[in-house]
Amino acid sequence: MKILIPDTIALQVSADAEVVVYDIRSEIPVEHRDAQMLVVWHNSASWLQDAAGYLTDLRLVQALASGADVVLNAGFSDEVRICSGRSLHDGPVAEHALALILSAVRRLDRLRDAQLEHRWDEDFNDVQSARDSQRDYTLADARVTIWGFGSIAATLAPLLTALGADVRGIARSAGTRSGYPVHADADAADVLADTDVLVSILPATEATTDLFDSAIFSALTPGAVFVNVGRGATVDERALIDALESGRLRAAAIDVTTSEPLPASDPLWDAPNLILTPHVAGNRPIGAGALIDANAARLAAGDPLVNQVHP
Amino acid sequence: MKILIPDTIALQVSADAEVVVYDIRSEIPVEHRDAQMLVVWHNSASWLQDAAGYLTDLRLVQALASGADVVLNAGFSDEVRICSGRSLHDGPVAEHALALILSAVRRLDRLRDAQLEHRWDEDFNDVQSARDSQRDYTLADARVTIWGFGSIAATLAPLLTALGADVRGIARSAGTRSGYPVHADADAADVLADTDVLVSILPATEATTDLFDSAIFSALTPGAVFVNVGRGATVDERALIDALESGRLRAAAIDVTTSEPLPASDPLWDAPNLILTPHVAGNRPIGAGALIDANAARLAAGDPLVNQVHP
Repeated sequence: MKILIPDTIALQVSADAEVVVYDIRSEIPVEHRDAQMLVVWHNSASWLQDAAGYLTDLRLVQALASGADVVLNAGFSDEVRICSGRSLHDGPVAEHALALILSAVRRLDRLRDAQLEHRWDEDFNDVQSARDSQRDYTLADARVTIWGFGSIAATLAPLLTALGADVRGIARSAGTRSGYPVHADADAADVLADTDVLVSILPATEATTDLFDSAIFSALTPGAVFVNVGRGATVDERALIDALESGRLRAAAIDVTTSEPLPASDPLWDAPNLILTPHVAGNRPIGAGALIDANAARLAAGDPLVNQVHP
Repeated sequence: MKILIPDTIALQVSADAEVVVYDIRSEIPVEHRDAQMLVVWHNSASWLQDAAGYLTDLRLVQALASGADVVLNAGFSDEVRICSGRSLHDGPVAEHALALILSAVRRLDRLRDAQLEHRWDEDFNDVQSARDSQRDYTLADARVTIWGFGSIAATLAPLLTALGADVRGIARSAGTRSGYPVHADADAADVLADTDVLVSILPATEATTDLFDSAIFSALTPGAVFVNVGRGATVDERALIDALESGRLRAAAIDVTTSEPLPASDPLWDAPNLILTPHVAGNRPIGAGALIDANAARLAAGDPLVNQVHP
């Protein structure tokens, strides 16, 4: 088997295969178009569309990103299996999500702005210790709902529990996962009404497009916090800005936007009480070489693949 | 017994005692100067010095702050016992410490500054995923040393462990505490040489004044991160600024400064790669009423007090 490995990441691959490193900015040389496995990392959508046309022997595309939507939309033939890099990002994404959740709840953005003004923010001490607002500034006893309860959520949830939060999930089907109660999408309204902090780890699909709209933000407890480490396309960004401007949301922290990179003129940049990071939660896969090895071996043996998302 | 309760915090006290709420900006009325227990929260140093002179029946001063240094220095007679509010702050301080640690390691300050400029920081993605610098941007496998290994550290350490960090402590005496290896002060140099993130939770004492100086910062691994949620007096702030300017420290996050509030002209505000919050980690005691009840009952029964720091 021949595996094409992108030049955008340092990988330790020990699969029993011919490994060819390729430049993601150029076409695959003709002599390597017989590869059966293609690993992609930071490849452009147009590169993938081209490759889908000329890599005719391909059996598996292994994405290293947490979501494989760009690959899924590239036009690969239906027989080509597609695997995501989901499990490589559980730890890193959970870590960045926790950093964003804590920053939004503890309002480190507000304190950073005060620092830039050389201003010791005494008012912060008042509101964080006032009887009526104290609980807004801590995860202790906060009701946190994670929408999209997969492996990242399973890593994140215990961290939130350790900080004193009451954690539950929403997913396509109800049940108990990793010890946490997970409610079905259909019951979301009831859960949201009891939610102080809503964390999305949803992928971009037809069903999730603009899911987080004014109806969802209005369903949360007044003054709730919204955090998105999933995909930007799941958010109606005008509704998010409105909810922040009206105070319906007390604060939000997002790592993803509908347009990336976000244009300098976009109104999101200046939305009040919003923390915006440039899609950095998941850009650091851990264990990619081992995943490639495992899926190469499974493909050769006809075993089920890890993180398969298509067909 | 008569207990004087400050008007600066809402408290549920059910001790079998006469409870008198007092204004921390005025002298205690003459008819209440026979109180045996004084609870203090946000009282000024000069108020405490005055009170030490006229509260002649006092047997116990119960501070609600994590450190009782202002009370210890107020001139109360040697027979007056002093208890801190240390245990009330374990959860809140650990939470803020974790927020600062994650913000410094993930450089949310840098990303906030980019947001204010409407700039999608692509370079961040490069450095956080580059082979040589990737480990700087995560707690996974980071060697974290907590200096001052009391009850706050015991709350914080498991959170860091859950994020993949290798956690150890430094304290006056060596041993295993809450399952973590703790080294003696005298062996600090060896521990620091192996430290990526140094977290101080030290109180202000004669022994800790200016402890964190250029020698300590130079003993850390090059490019280490320093976080202080203890007391500002433990830091030689000129040395901290120098270490940040030279890059000897990659980043720092401090919640406390030698002068509080920090004057607008202080050079700390503009130190590069420094996150500065206005002493907000511990200003939200949880369970203060129960601590007062417990220590009032223990004082009456002659039992050992909780959090006693003097004599």
